[in-house]
Amino acid sequence: MSDIKTREPAADAVPATQAGLLDRTLGNLRSVWRDIAGSAITVVGTIRSATGRTEEERWRSQIRDCLEGKGGEVSARARAADLGRTYLALEPEGRRSFLRLLAEFDVDRAAVDRAIDIFHRAADPVARGEAERTLRRALEPGRMQLLTQFNTLPEGVKFLVEMRAELLELARQDRHYVALEADLKDLLRGWFDVGFLELRRITWDSPASLLEKLIRYEAVHAIRGWQDLKDRLDSDRRCFGFFHPRMPDEPLIFVEVALVQGMSDSVQALLDPDAPASDPQEADTAIFYSISNAQKGLAGISFGNFLIKRVVDLLKGEFGNLKQFATLSPIPGFRRWLEAEVAQKGDQLLAPPEFQQLHELVPDREQPLLAEALARARGEVEGVLEAALQPVLMRLAASYLLSARNGRRAADPVAHFHLTNGARVERLNWAADTSPKGWKESFGLMVNYAYRLSNIDANHEAYRGDGKVVASTAMKSLAKSS
Amino acid sequence: MSDIKTREPAADAVPATQAGLLDRTLGNLRSVWRDIAGSAITVVGTIRSATGRTEEERWRSQIRDCLEGKGGEVSARARAADLGRTYLALEPEGRRSFLRLLAEFDVDRAAVDRAIDIFHRAADPVARGEAERTLRRALEPGRMQLLTQFNTLPEGVKFLVEMRAELLELARQDRHYVALEADLKDLLRGWFDVGFLELRRITWDSPASLLEKLIRYEAVHAIRGWQDLKDRLDSDRRCFGFFHPRMPDEPLIFVEVALVQGMSDSVQALLDPDAPASDPQEADTAIFYSISNAQKGLAGISFGNFLIKRVVDLLKGEFGNLKQFATLSPIPGFRRWLEAEVAQKGDQLLAPPEFQQLHELVPDREQPLLAEALARARGEVEGVLEAALQPVLMRLAASYLLSARNGRRAADPVAHFHLTNGARVERLNWAADTSPKGWKESFGLMVNYAYRLSNIDANHEAYRGDGKVVASTAMKSLAKSS
Amino acid sequence: MSDIKTREPAADAVPATQAGLLDRTLGNLRSVWRDIAGSAITVVGTIRSATGRTEEERWRSQIRDCLEGKGGEVSARARAADLGRTYLALEPEGRRSFLRLLAEFDVDRAAVDRAIDIFHRAADPVARGEAERTLRRALEPGRMQLLTQFNTLPEGVKFLVEMRAELLELARQDRHYVALEADLKDLLRGWFDVGFLELRRITWDSPASLLEKLIRYEAVHAIRGWQDLKDRLDSDRRCFGFFHPRMPDEPLIFVEVALVQGMSDSVQALLDPDAPASDPQEADTAIFYSISNAQKGLAGISFGNFLIKRVVDLLKGEFGNLKQFATLSPIPGFRRWLEAEVAQKGDQLLAPPEFQQLHELVPDREQPLLAEALARARGEVEGVLEAALQPVLMRLAASYLLSARNGRRAADPVAHFHLTNGARVERLNWAADTSPKGWKESFGLMVNYAYRLSNIDANHEAYRGDGKVVASTAMKSLAKSS
Amino acid sequence: MSDIKTREPAADAVPATQAGLLDRTLGNLRSVWRDIAGSAITVVGTIRSATGRTEEERWRSQIRDCLEGKGGEVSARARAADLGRTYLALEPEGRRSFLRLLAEFDVDRAAVDRAIDIFHRAADPVARGEAERTLRRALEPGRMQLLTQFNTLPEGVKFLVEMRAELLELARQDRHYVALEADLKDLLRGWFDVGFLELRRITWDSPASLLEKLIRYEAVHAIRGWQDLKDRLDSDRRCFGFFHPRMPDEPLIFVEVALVQGMSDSVQALLDPDAPASDPQEADTAIFYSISNAQKGLAGISFGNFLIKRVVDLLKGEFGNLKQFATLSPIPGFRRWLEAEVAQKGDQLLAPPEFQQLHELVPDREQPLLAEALARARGEVEGVLEAALQPVLMRLAASYLLSARNGRRAADPVAHFHLTNGARVERLNWAADTSPKGWKESFGLMVNYAYRLSNIDANHEAYRGDGKVVASTAMKSLAKSS
Repeated sequence: MSDIKTREPAADAVPATQAGLLDRTLGNLRSVWRDIAGSAITVVGTIRSATGRTEEERWRSQIRDCLEGKGGEVSARARAADLGRTYLALEPEGRRSFLRLLAEFDVDRAAVDRAIDIFHRAADPVARGEAERTLRRALEPGRMQLLTQFNTLPEGVKFLVEMRAELLELARQDRHYVALEADLKDLLRGWFDVGFLELRRITWDSPASLLEKLIRYEAVHAIRGWQDLKDRLDSDRRCFGFFHPRMPDEPLIFVEVALVQGMSDSVQALLDPDAPASDPQEADTAIFYSISNAQKGLAGISFGNFLIKRVVDLLKGEFGNLKQFATLSPIPGFRRWLEAEVAQKGDQLLAPPEFQQLHELVPDREQPLLAEALARARGEVEGVLEAALQPVLMRLAASYLLSARNGRRAADPVAHFHLTNGARVERLNWAADTSPKGWKESFGLMVNYAYRLSNIDANHEAYRGDGKVVASTAMKSLAKSS
Repeated sequence: MSDIKTREPAADAVPATQAGLLDRTLGNLRSVWRDIAGSAITVVGTIRSATGRTEEERWRSQIRDCLEGKGGEVSARARAADLGRTYLALEPEGRRSFLRLLAEFDVDRAAVDRAIDIFHRAADPVARGEAERTLRRALEPGRMQLLTQFNTLPEGVKFLVEMRAELLELARQDRHYVALEADLKDLLRGWFDVGFLELRRITWDSPASLLEKLIRYEAVHAIRGWQDLKDRLDSDRRCFGFFHPRMPDEPLIFVEVALVQGMSDSVQALLDPDAPASDPQEADTAIFYSISNAQKGLAGISFGNFLIKRVVDLLKGEFGNLKQFATLSPIPGFRRWLEAEVAQKGDQLLAPPEFQQLHELVPDREQPLLAEALARARGEVEGVLEAALQPVLMRLAASYLLSARNGRRAADPVAHFHLTNGARVERLNWAADTSPKGWKESFGLMVNYAYRLSNIDANHEAYRGDGKVVASTAMKSLAKSS
Repeated sequence: MSDIKTREPAADAVPATQAGLLDRTLGNLRSVWRDIAGSAITVVGTIRSATGRTEEERWRSQIRDCLEGKGGEVSARARAADLGRTYLALEPEGRRSFLRLLAEFDVDRAAVDRAIDIFHRAADPVARGEAERTLRRALEPGRMQLLTQFNTLPEGVKFLVEMRAELLELARQDRHYVALEADLKDLLRGWFDVGFLELRRITWDSPASLLEKLIRYEAVHAIRGWQDLKDRLDSDRRCFGFFHPRMPDEPLIFVEVALVQGMSDSVQALLDPDAPASDPQEADTAIFYSISNAQKGLAGISFGNFLIKRVVDLLKGEFGNLKQFATLSPIPGFRRWLEAEVAQKGDQLLAPPEFQQLHELVPDREQPLLAEALARARGEVEGVLEAALQPVLMRLAASYLLSARNGRRAADPVAHFHLTNGARVERLNWAADTSPKGWKESFGLMVNYAYRLSNIDANHEAYRGDGKVVASTAMKSLAKSS
Repeated sequence: MSDIKTREPAADAVPATQAGLLDRTLGNLRSVWRDIAGSAITVVGTIRSATGRTEEERWRSQIRDCLEGKGGEVSARARAADLGRTYLALEPEGRRSFLRLLAEFDVDRAAVDRAIDIFHRAADPVARGEAERTLRRALEPGRMQLLTQFNTLPEGVKFLVEMRAELLELARQDRHYVALEADLKDLLRGWFDVGFLELRRITWDSPASLLEKLIRYEAVHAIRGWQDLKDRLDSDRRCFGFFHPRMPDEPLIFVEVALVQGMSDSVQALLDPDAPASDPQEADTAIFYSISNAQKGLAGISFGNFLIKRVVDLLKGEFGNLKQFATLSPIPGFRRWLEAEVAQKGDQLLAPPEFQQLHELVPDREQPLLAEALARARGEVEGVLEAALQPVLMRLAASYLLSARNGRRAADPVAHFHLTNGARVERLNWAADTSPKGWKESFGLMVNYAYRLSNIDANHEAYRGDGKVVASTAMKSLAKSS
C-alpha cells in the first residue's frame, strides 16, 4: 500500500494469513527450544491442558521468583527462560492469559511515591542526581525486568519482537495490555538502536531461508516467485537490509534499488522479467523502488531514514557515475483523498475546458462528472477517456502531494516519510504502475522523491519546522496548472 | 590481587602504566577514525590548541543541535559522531572539560515537576501508565541521549566503555561527574546485558592481537610471556571469555581452566612450564584458576557468575569424566585482616601449645610473638619456623574465610564473589602460591571453592539471606581447631 | 534414468537444453572474467569476428610462447590466462577450432624415442629410475602443460571441467579430439582426487545460487520447484555433496537422504509435499533416494562410493537410532531388457498358471501375451490386470537384477554401481515409482540396495572377483519363484 | 643465508634442532590422528615394539592390498590411511625401514616393456595416442598410487610434505630412496601448482599459531620475538604468504614488505624496534626485505616469483603513491667467492692506489694484503680500515654480482633467483647489514634488486637466453671502477 509498509492501525490488523504466519514463527521457535531443552516439554504439556486458575497461580509465583532473583542471578535467568518456553508452548488464548498476568507486574506505586518524596527533599545536586536515578528506577515496572531476561532464550530477541507484534494487537482491543506493550516498545527501542544494527547486502548467494523471507515480507511490489526475486538481485540491482546481531537471520527492513539511466517512470519496466541486465557501472541514477519493514513487532521504531542514507553512501562509493538518487514511490492515499474531495466539491475541481472535454466523453451520468469519468475510465472507453483524464489527475495529484495535510503532516504517508527524511518531491509519472493495485490506489500514478545529500538537512528542517513541502519547479507548476 | 580483578576504589586507582594504556587505547581509536574520516582532523586541530571559552561554547552548541535533532535523526547522529571524534582528539585536560560540559545536560527539572504533577492527577490505570512512562522519560537527562548516539561511531561501544573508565576516575575526585558516570553505567548495563554476550573459547589459534590482550588484562596470576600463555591454552587447559557483538575484539571477562586429576593445591604446579600436558579426557576435575575482568569501564556490571556457569555446562558436555568443578583462589584480604587482629588481640590468637612452640623458635622479640614469627618466617629460619606456623595460619585463615565479615558480606572479596555465586568453601591449601605476591597477601595460602550445580541455589540463598557461609566439614573443623 | 546420473554415451548426448546450459555457464565465466580483465575484451572482439587462418596462426604462436615459458613462468601463466579468455569469448565453432589446434600440441615423438633408447640402456637402478621418469615426462604432451596453466584463471578449474564436457562431445564424433580429451581427464582425475574434496551438508540455509544448481542437476527424481526442494531439506531429510576447494560454488555430486522408520517402498510417499516432517532422532533407517553427478565434465571420475560411505559415517554419528542404510533405487534397464527377452522367448517367460490368468484378462492380441498385457496394463484395465502382472514382473525383475549380465557386470547400471560399492540387493518394491517415467523404465518397480558396513568389503570382492551378486534370501526366492 | 631460504644441499642438512622440529611436527600429526581414530593405536603399539622381519612382511602385504584395491576403492583408501598412521607412530629408524620398503613398489618393468612394444607398433594416431597414455601409466610406480592415497588422512598433504623432507635427507645418503623422493616430488609439484594456492595477508590479527610459524620459518633476518614480529606487521608493513587449501595452517612461502620513502639501504633501520610507523599512504617504495620458503619438503618447487608478482599487484592497488618495488637482499656468496679469488689472484685484485692505502693501514702481514685487511677490519682498527676497504669491496661486490658465474647462472643464489624473475641489479649498499651474519656473509653489503613490471619479461629473457645480467648504470660503473 506504500513503499514503507504502513504502520497505521488499519494496515496492521492481522489478516488470517498473518496470524498464521505468527503461529508458524512461534512454532519454529518452539522447535528450536524443544531441541535444546527437551525436558521442558512435559511441564508444558500439563499447562497446555488447561489455563485455569492453577496454572496462572503457578506462573505468578514463577514470575515473582524471577523478579526476586531467588537462587541468584544465574538461576533467575534460567527460570525466566523456563517461563518463556512455557509461553511458547501455549495456544493463542493461553498466551493472552499469560500476557495479562505479566501486565500485572506493574510499577510499585508506593515505591514511586517514596522516591518522589525523596526527590522533592533533595538539597544538593549530588543528592538530587541520585534521587532522580532512584525515581527513574522505581518507575521501571517489574515486568520490564522479566522481559529483559527473556533475551537469554535462544532466539530470545526474536521472541520478544514476536511478543510485541501480538501485544500490539491485544492493546488495540483491551486497555490492560497498553502499558505492557509500551514497556516492551521502550525496551526494544533501546536494543534496536540503529548504532547496533548491521547493514548487509543481500544477493542471490544469500541463504535461501533469508531470501524466502524477502518474498514473504516485501510490502510494496509483491515478489512473484523465485525467478522474480533473482531478477531483483541481478547485476544491475542491489538489495540491502538492516540486521540485529542477535537476530541474524531476520531482516528488520530492506530496500531494493535499480541502477539505471535516467529517473525511472514505470515500475513495470523496472520489474520486467524479460528486460536484460544493463551495465551498472554506466548507471547515472539509483532508484529506490521498494522499502519494506519486515518486523511487525518493531512498529514505531524507525530505520528507513538511516537505511536510505547508508545505502546512498555505499552506492556512491561503488558506482562512480551515479548522479542522482531517487525513489519511484506509490501514492497510497491519492484516490481516497480525491474521492473525498469529489464528494465535497463535485465538479468544481475541474477547470471549465476540462469539464467540457470530459462531458463530451461521458454524457450520461448520475453523479459528478469527475466521479463518473473515473468509474468508467478503467475498462470501458479506456483510451480516449484516460487521455482526457491524464492532465486532470496529474494536476490534482500534484496538488495532493504538495498541499494536502493531516494536521501538520503531509496527508500521504509515503510522502510524509520521505519528506521527513529530507527528500524533495521531484516528478509525477503517469501510468507508472499499471497493476490493478496501482489503479486502485492512485490511478496508476507514481512519484519520484529525490535525495540530494547537500539539501537533506535544510529540507528536513523546512518540513519539520514550517511544514513546508520542498518540491521541484515542475511539480509546483503542475500543482498550479489549469 | 584477587581472582576477580577487584573493583574497590583503591585497586582502581589508575597507576601510571594504566593511564598510559588508556591513552594508547584512545590513540588506537583515534587512528581508526582518522582513517575513516580524515576531514575531521583539521577541525580537531583548532580545538586542540586551546580548550578555552570559545571551544566550549562551540561544543555546547553542537551538543544542543544533536539533542534537538536538527536536520533530522540521521544528521543528528552524524553530528554526534563528529563530537565523539572531537573528544578523541583531545588531550586529558580537554577531555575533562568536555565531560564536565556534557554533565551539564541534565534532567529538565521543570519537565520533571510537570510530569510528577500529571502523575499525581492521573485517574484511571491507562492514564497512570502513560503518566509513569512520561515521568520516566522526563527523568532521562539529555546527555544520555547523546551518549547513546556515540554508539554510531566505529568502535563506538568501546569508546563509551573507555569514557566510563575515565569518568570513574573523575567522579571519585569531583562530584560534578558523579551523575554522568551513573548515567553511563545505566546505559552500559542495558547494552551489556548478559543475554547479548557471546561466549567464545580462546585458543592458540585465536588472533595474536586478542591473545596479547589476555597477557595485558590477566589480573590474578600474571602471564609471563607468550610461552606461558601458550601453555595456558594447551590441550589440557581451556580459556573462555565473554564478548559483545559490537566490541568483538575485546574480551569483557575471561576464565582460565585446568583439566586435572584431583583438586589442585598449588598454582605453581598448574603453571609449571615443564609439566607435560595430560590427557583432558581422563580429567576428573576442572580447576578455575583465574578469572579476570578486562574492562575497567564496565566496573560494577557483573558477568563472572554467568561465565562460570556457562563454562561448567560446556565442559560437562565435552569431558564426560569430570566429577568436580572448583577454583584455586587467592585470599587477598587474609594478611591485612590478620595484622589487624594481631594488633588488637596480640598473642591471644595463639593456643598455649602454639605459643610454646613458636616461643622456642623466636626467643627475642619486640612485638607480639605471632607478628615477630611471621616477620621472620619468610627467609631467615624458613624451614622449621614455617612448619610451626602452618597449623596456626591454616586455622586462622579458615576462621577468616568462614567468620570474618564486612557488614553482612564475607570480609574477603574473592570469598564474597564465589559465595554469592553459590559456591562452597572446600579446602585450604598450604604453600599453594609460593610467589612473593602469594606470601605477601596470604602467606602462600590458597583456597578451593567448589561449584556443585545441585546446591548452588540453596548456597546462594543461605548466603544472601542469612549471610551463612557454606563450607565443607573439613573447613569447619579447621576453623574450630586449636 | 538412474539414481546415478548415467555415464553411458547415450545418456550423455547433450540435448538442446543441456547445450544451452553449457553456453550459459560459459557466459557466466565470461562475465566473471570481463569484470576482472576488461582489457582482454577488445582483443577478443577481433578474434570473434572470424576464426579464419590468421586467428589460428596467432593462437598457435601464443600457445607456443606459453609452452616455451617466454618471459618467465609468471608471464607464461598470464599469457595462458589470456588464451583462456580468448577461448571463452568464442562461439561454439570457434571453440572447436581452438581445441583442434590445442590437440596438435602432442607428445614430441622424437623425444620419446630418445627417452626409450636411454631407458633401454640404463644399467643400474638409479639410472633406470631416472630414465623412467624422463620417459614419463617425455610422454606428457605439451597441451597438458597449457591445460594446467589455465587453472590460474579465476574459476579456472570450472573452466577446464566445462572444456572437458565439450571435448567429450567432440571426441565422440571426431578422433582428433580423443587424445586431448583423455589428457584432460587424466589431469582432472589427479586434481579431483577424493582426498582433496570437501564434504558439505546442504541445507535450506545454503546460498540460493547453490540450491538453484541442485534443482538443475538433480538427475533421478526431478525437483519440481523451490517448495519441493525445501521439503527435501526438511528436518527429517539430509543432503550432502562433495565440493572442490577451487570450485566452491559447484557441487560435484550430491545425495539426498530420508530419515524414516523402516525401509521405504515408495518414492512418491518420500516426496509427498503434504507429509509432515517426522522426528529424525526416532528414525531407524536412512534411505538414499537420489544420487546425482553434477558435472558432466567429470564423467568417468567416480565419487559416489566415497560419498555414500562418508554420509553413512556422518549419519551414524548424528542419529544413534539408525539401524540400516539403504537406497530406494530405480531399475532403469529392466523394461528394455524385458522387451528384448519377450522378443526372443515370447510367452515362455510365463509359468503356465501365469499364462492362464493373463490369457483371461487379455483375450485378443497380436503379439506375445506378456507384451500385450504390458501394453494394456497402463491405463485401460488397470486394476485387475496390474494385479495379475505384479507377481510376474516381480519375479522377472528379481531375475534381471540377480542374473542378467553385461559381460561380467550386472546388466543394470544402477545395480552395477551399488554392487561395486559392496551393497546387497535387498528388496523389490511394487508400485514404488508411480510416475510415467517410473512405469516406462521399470513398470513402477524400485529396489532397495542395503549397505552394511561389516559386509561391504566381502560383497565387493565377491562381485568384483567372481561376479557374484549378493542378495537377500527374499530376493533369491523371488527370482526362483513361479 | 639468503633472502630465499637456500635449497643447496649444505643448507638443507637438517641440524639437530630441525630434526627435532620434524619430530615435533610428526608428533602433532600423530596426536591429531590419535584423536580421530583411537583404535589404531593398539595396532601401532605392537609395531612400534620392533621393526623386525615380521612387521615388514605385514607392511608389505598391507601395501599390496592397497595397491590391488581389495575390498573396493573406499576400503583401500581406509587401509592406506591405516598404513599412514602406522608410519607416523614409528621412530626415525622404523620410518626409514618403512620408506625403504615403499621404495620397492617400483615400476613393473615387464608392463613397461609390453607398453613400449605396443607403442612401437601403433599404426594410426588414435592407437598411438592410446599407446602413449598406456605407456605413461605403466611408468607410474605402484608406490605413487599409495602416496596419493595418503592424502585422505587428516592433514594428509602436510604428512606427505613432511615425508618428502625426510626423504630428501635419506636420498642424499642412500640411492635406494632417490626414485621414491623423485616420485613424491612429481606428485607434490602437481598438487602445489601455483594455480591452486591462496594468497593471504598475514597480520597481527592472524592466529598466534600461524604467527609462531613465521618466527620459526623466517630464514633471512631472524625474528627476535613476538614484539619484533608485531613490528613487522605494523601499519607500514605488509606480510603475505601462499597457502594450500588442504594445508591451511601452514604458510608455504611468505614475504615481508616495508612501505617507505626511497629505496632502503639498511636492514637494521628497517627492523629498528624504536622507529615509529610511518604513513603507508605516503610511501613511494615497497621494499621486499625477506622471502622465506617455509616447507623443506617442497624444495625445488618454486613459488617465489609468483608471490612477488602477486604482491606487487596487490600493493599497487592499495597504495596509489608507490613508484618503485625493490628488494633489500643479502649477497650470501660474496665472501666465499672473494676468499677464493684472493687465494687465487692475491693482491692483483687491488688497484695500485688501493694497495697503497691499505698497505699503510696494515703494514705487517703473513698473507695477501687484502686477506689480512679483511681479517683485521672487523674489530681492531675498525673505523679507518673499513673506510679504506669500502670502495674496494663495493667494486668487487658489484663485479661479483654482475660477472661471477656458476655455469650460465649468476654465482650468487639470491641474484640468480631475482634475475630469473626479471629483476634488475639496482644498487649496492654499504653497512646495510651490520649484524655478525651480515659481516660474515658479505662484509655488511646488501643489494637492491628492482622490479619494474614493464621490463620483467625482457630482463628474464635476456638472463635466461644470453645469461645477461641486467643492471643499473650505477652498478655497471661501480663494477668497472678502480
